[in-house]
Amino acid sequence: MNIKPLGDRVVVKLVEAEEKTKAGIFLTASAQEKPQVAEVVAVGPGAHTDEGKLIPMEVKVGDKVITSKYSGTEVKVDGVEYTIVKQSDILAVVE
Amino acid sequence: MNIKPLGDRVVVKLVEAEEKTKAGIFLTASAQEKPQVAEVVAVGPGAHTDEGKLIPMEVKVGDKVITSKYSGTEVKVDGVEYTIVKQSDILAVVE
Amino acid sequence: MNIKPLGDRVVVKLVEAEEKTKAGIFLTASAQEKPQVAEVVAVGPGAHTDEGKLIPMEVKVGDKVITSKYSGTEVKVDGVEYTIVKQSDILAVVE
Amino acid sequence: MNIKPLGDRVVVKLVEAEEKTKAGIFLTASAQEKPQVAEVVAVGPGAHTDEGKLIPMEVKVGDKVITSKYSGTEVKVDGVEYTIVKQSDILAVVE
Amino acid sequence: MNIKPLGDRVVVKLVEAEEKTKAGIFLTASAQEKPQVAEVVAVGPGAHTDEGKLIPMEVKVGDKVITSKYSGTEVKVDGVEYTIVKQSDILAVVE
Amino acid sequence: MNIKPLGDRVVVKLVEAEEKTKAGIFLTASAQEKPQVAEVVAVGPGAHTDEGKLIPMEVKVGDKVITSKYSGTEVKVDGVEYTIVKQSDILAVVE
Amino acid sequence: MNIKPLGDRVVVKLVEAEEKTKAGIFLTASAQEKPQVAEVVAVGPGAHTDEGKLIPMEVKVGDKVITSKYSGTEVKVDGVEYTIVKQSDILAVVE
Repeated sequence: MNIKPLGDRVVVKLVEAEEKTKAGIFLTASAQEKPQVAEVVAVGPGAHTDEGKLIPMEVKVGDKVITSKYSGTEVKVDGVEYTIVKQSDILAVVE
Repeated sequence: MNIKPLGDRVVVKLVEAEEKTKAGIFLTASAQEKPQVAEVVAVGPGAHTDEGKLIPMEVKVGDKVITSKYSGTEVKVDGVEYTIVKQSDILAVVE
Repeated sequence: MNIKPLGDRVVVKLVEAEEKTKAGIFLTASAQEKPQVAEVVAVGPGAHTDEGKLIPMEVKVGDKVITSKYSGTEVKVDGVEYTIVKQSDILAVVE
Repeated sequence: MNIKPLGDRVVVKLVEAEEKTKAGIFLTASAQEKPQVAEVVAVGPGAHTDEGKLIPMEVKVGDKVITSKYSGTEVKVDGVEYTIVKQSDILAVVE
Repeated sequence: MNIKPLGDRVVVKLVEAEEKTKAGIFLTASAQEKPQVAEVVAVGPGAHTDEGKLIPMEVKVGDKVITSKYSGTEVKVDGVEYTIVKQSDILAVVE
Repeated sequence: MNIKPLGDRVVVKLVEAEEKTKAGIFLTASAQEKPQVAEVVAVGPGAHTDEGKLIPMEVKVGDKVITSKYSGTEVKVDGVEYTIVKQSDILAVVE
Repeated sequence: MNIKPLGDRVVVKLVEAEEKTKAGIFLTASAQEKPQVAEVVAVGPGAHTDEGKLIPMEVKVGDKVITSKYSGTEVKVDGVEYTIVKQSDILAVVE
């Protein structure tokens, strides 16, 4: 079963704690946000400008990204947990 | 009797719990939102940009969608419950 | 006496409970809004875009509509109660 | 002495209770607003769009209008009370 | 010493109580605003639209104006009190 | 060492109390804001409109200006205190 | 491992207290913000205007900048702490 996000939304799967340590990324929590490392599993078509022009997406499936934790909607499909976020909640790609 | 939503609104019918389990979609509640799985039963004509250009809708009748629960207006017509939402409250289509 | 709404406003007359039942529309109250079924009795000329272009109205006199209850201004003229709402508070037309 | 409102503002004079009854307009108070019937005594030149284009006013001196009560500034000139409102606070013209 | 306001700001000098009575203007205080009668002593060059076009000012030096009291910054220069306001806080010119 | 402000920001140095008295400017505190007299020491390149057009700055190095006190960031460089403000927080130039 | 910020975001590394003293920059805390001195380690591609035009970034890798402290997300990669901020949270470059 596929989740196809609308507009400029992205579906991500949170990276497990062990994977995070191996990858060398350790995120600290600040008062405002608790960032997370996640992998992109689906990307929407993009949003439109006021004139109807399509704004292309900046991430692709497979990217490892840092997102703000308190945004997004959690969804569980076929036993796996995903989060649907807006692209503006993705802060950076990690390579 | 028909409900014809205005602008970029969509009328959806919530999917029953059993159907959700069969479909493999199980939604968790996060502090902000309680998403729902629903089927699209009617779609508005779309909203207009500031210049008066029509922005086409991204969903169609029959689509199974994930929506934010706390948006929308509940309506009961001929004994069936529907919810009228804005398209921006629809997060993804599920296939 | 006529009420002529300005801009993109609409004057509606709430439909009586009996009429609602006959029509088969029964509205439930959710935490946010308490929708209503009403009949359109007057329609404004429409609002203007930032460029001064007129955005045509989407409803007409005689339409039966579903509105959000907590918006609008109640007015009683010649003993009859009306509500003046913005067109964006009208969710759907019912046919 | 004249009050010349700026931009898209309008100066109105509230209609006395007796006049309201004769006119057949009786306004009810809802939780949000307490509408009023008033007569237009002066109209500003209109506001400008972002491009500098003038948006013409929709009311004229002598119109009887329904306004939201909680907006506007009360002014007393030569012993008469007036209210200065924005045109967007005028809901309808009554004829 | 001169105060030269920037953008669409205006420097006004409040009119003394006696002058107000002679002029016949008596302002009442409503819950939201406490209007004031003042004389314009300096006018900024105007603000710019998003496209960089200059929006001309609507008042001139010497105009007697009604302003909202709770906006603006009070300044005392050479022993005289002035208020610097935005032109949008000026409701009307009084003649 | 130089502080080069970005966009439409301005670096100012507060004028000492004695200098203020000599200059004849004495600022009163109102509930909302506590204005200040300061000298401009650096000016950013300006901000851009939505179309990417540069909006030129309205102040220059050496200008004496009145700013709102509660905006801006205080910085101490080489033992001297400066404040970095947005140009929209500068109310007037004093000559 | 690289952090590649999206849009108009910038990755900075806070400058150690000793380095700040040597550099002569000492930042005071005001009620609203607690500025920081940091070095730019990565710069996003820039954001887009509503028309889809790219707005170029104003800082480059290696710049020493003053940022507002309460914005941004803290991230620790390979044992080093970084902060991801929006370019609009960078007040000035220090040279």
